[in-house]
Amino acid sequence: MPKLSHKADQMPASPIRKLMPSADIAMQKGLNVYHLNIGQPDIPSPLQSIEAMHEWNIPVLAYTRSEGTLEYREALTTYYHGKGFSDLTPSNFMVTNGGSEALLFTLSLIANAGDEIIIPEPFYANYNGFSVQTDVNVVPISASIESGFALPDIADFEKKITDKTRAIVICHPGNPTGYLYSKEELDKLRDLVLKHDLYLISDEVYREFTYDENHISVLAYPDLAQNAIVIDSESKRFSMCGIRLGAMISRNEELLAAAMKFAQARLSPVLVSQIIATAAHRESAGYLMQAKAEYSQRRNFVVDALNRIDGVFVPKPKGAFYCVAKLPVENAEDFAKWMLEDFEYNGETVMVAPNTGFYSTPNSGLDEVRIAYVLEISELDKAVKILEKGLEAYRAR
Amino acid sequence: MPKLSHKADQMPASPIRKLMPSADIAMQKGLNVYHLNIGQPDIPSPLQSIEAMHEWNIPVLAYTRSEGTLEYREALTTYYHGKGFSDLTPSNFMVTNGGSEALLFTLSLIANAGDEIIIPEPFYANYNGFSVQTDVNVVPISASIESGFALPDIADFEKKITDKTRAIVICHPGNPTGYLYSKEELDKLRDLVLKHDLYLISDEVYREFTYDENHISVLAYPDLAQNAIVIDSESKRFSMCGIRLGAMISRNEELLAAAMKFAQARLSPVLVSQIIATAAHRESAGYLMQAKAEYSQRRNFVVDALNRIDGVFVPKPKGAFYCVAKLPVENAEDFAKWMLEDFEYNGETVMVAPNTGFYSTPNSGLDEVRIAYVLEISELDKAVKILEKGLEAYRAR
Repeated sequence: MPKLSHKADQMPASPIRKLMPSADIAMQKGLNVYHLNIGQPDIPSPLQSIEAMHEWNIPVLAYTRSEGTLEYREALTTYYHGKGFSDLTPSNFMVTNGGSEALLFTLSLIANAGDEIIIPEPFYANYNGFSVQTDVNVVPISASIESGFALPDIADFEKKITDKTRAIVICHPGNPTGYLYSKEELDKLRDLVLKHDLYLISDEVYREFTYDENHISVLAYPDLAQNAIVIDSESKRFSMCGIRLGAMISRNEELLAAAMKFAQARLSPVLVSQIIATAAHRESAGYLMQAKAEYSQRRNFVVDALNRIDGVFVPKPKGAFYCVAKLPVENAEDFAKWMLEDFEYNGETVMVAPNTGFYSTPNSGLDEVRIAYVLEISELDKAVKILEKGLEAYRAR
Repeated sequence: MPKLSHKADQMPASPIRKLMPSADIAMQKGLNVYHLNIGQPDIPSPLQSIEAMHEWNIPVLAYTRSEGTLEYREALTTYYHGKGFSDLTPSNFMVTNGGSEALLFTLSLIANAGDEIIIPEPFYANYNGFSVQTDVNVVPISASIESGFALPDIADFEKKITDKTRAIVICHPGNPTGYLYSKEELDKLRDLVLKHDLYLISDEVYREFTYDENHISVLAYPDLAQNAIVIDSESKRFSMCGIRLGAMISRNEELLAAAMKFAQARLSPVLVSQIIATAAHRESAGYLMQAKAEYSQRRNFVVDALNRIDGVFVPKPKGAFYCVAKLPVENAEDFAKWMLEDFEYNGETVMVAPNTGFYSTPNSGLDEVRIAYVLEISELDKAVKILEKGLEAYRAR
């Protein structure tokens, strides 16, 4: 057969989904599996979104404008005005197929083959995949679990900046860390990117879910108008990952004009998804408040419960719906696999995501897992107990 | 501001959509614009698809499997069994965000930066964009309008094959040409790709719309099991471009396994779109027959009407819903723009797509436009008359 590309080899398997075959084994045994591995929220999507589908009465499911429908970009504009960014207009929004496509567009727009982006690790695992896909090199800077994954020293960033560096990427609040950058930390990043003329790419898809402090967007920095690029998505905010609707947001007109060419090449984002999301943004305040309250309770519960397990350490996340747990095992991936293939407790088991795939530095976070608290507290309670029993049995092997 | 990438510069503007600002001028003047520029079918989407949206009763709009839902891949499998490819199973299908993503995945999977793909031109313009995005070089081979855009001599292909050549790409039936490759032509391509160990990428999204001869898929060649990659989409088949649902289809297991890593990085195709398309595939035979009959009538009408205009030549297309018209003008893009900005006939005008953007060789097809027959015959009738009046006035300036 003809050869495949280097990218086909280099592309990493998803650490979130790579244990699916092991999960299939568990399910074939008839086990009930608690999925703490994937950030698929369980909270129902907004009712008015479902109603928008029910009320659909246009006969042709047609393309929309490549940058997204005006109605949906107006809904986004109103949402961002509510966050205090009253200068934004629909033309600041490039609507994409999920945050994923927004990231792909962004990397393609700002970096040439072999250029570098600096990312504090652990970070959202698929940044690795998108970087391979766009021939960009990820330069990681390790954040420590002991500090709760706070921003590493700016001096560490300075050391890694070369003439190939194009951007700093942050996930804010963080997946998998749940860390929320403070104003002081963001100020430092602002100074850094201005000093070196870099882009600051901020993935803010979890911004609605912060539990102790308010989220500060990089859009709050007027002096970053040319540098700041925000990645957004409706997936987590409105519990509708399956509509694959995101956006790239910027005040940089040249960047947006170039993004339009990428958007036109793939014609348009999904019409139906834009209808659904436009409806979701109507009267969303109550929905978002309830969702946040629910995740906040779960966070408190699951972090406390996990920290009570012998040898487990979980820094308290300030946002998103993940936490990173350091486990008393040598290889958390082996443990996660074993939980699915060789363990059960009263006919049930738990699936977690090995955290090593969220690092770019090889062999980092080997004893860590990411846990998504996307189950009700009663279920989380059972899941944590099973995890505890599993750890005991695994260590006693 | 920080610099943009080379790709941001090199990315071509869409020839189909780049005249949108001119169209906006026409619309601001209150003109009725006949859109012959874009392949957005006017035929209603299947009723059962709209009903599937109306019947939606699942509270969370969740991710699906990265390769697509089993239900939808089973629907595709059944559809392809109906075409005679009874060996295919759901595992041969990688569901994507439109044919666009299927093409992006494919190019990323088979070619390294600087590798080449050979494409008979004119070809679907966005192949240029996807190639820029994936750092692949397009090597065009000119098909002639006089031959109706038949496959160029295989000797022409042989001359262009280097150690960087990775694939031959065909659009079959062709956009913008409407040309349908014969068994004899496909046999030649088969021999060529086997001789040089290349992939044969066949974009078959218009396969349902052929008017004189039957469509032969590259999947019909068992000896191309490792080489053939089909790009498919529901957009044109079921008049639902706005659901952005496509697929990459192959018998090459190694290719499919690598494609899964790309699919996982962007998590999943659109849930709602898969529900809609699964419904469309139920009892679709009558729908497809009617659509084909409608396009067939339009083709006959519009090609004859255009060829009656003084100085216009249109080879009769065998498939898709496009034709290429050679106009008695020097620069068809200037003419198309002028039609929108400076011309009207009884308060109406026509928008066509300059064909030069469908070539890779600079300054090719300067006097050609692509016309999509996606309007009813009564509308096409008016549009062609306006085009005729416009040509007269433009030449008399």
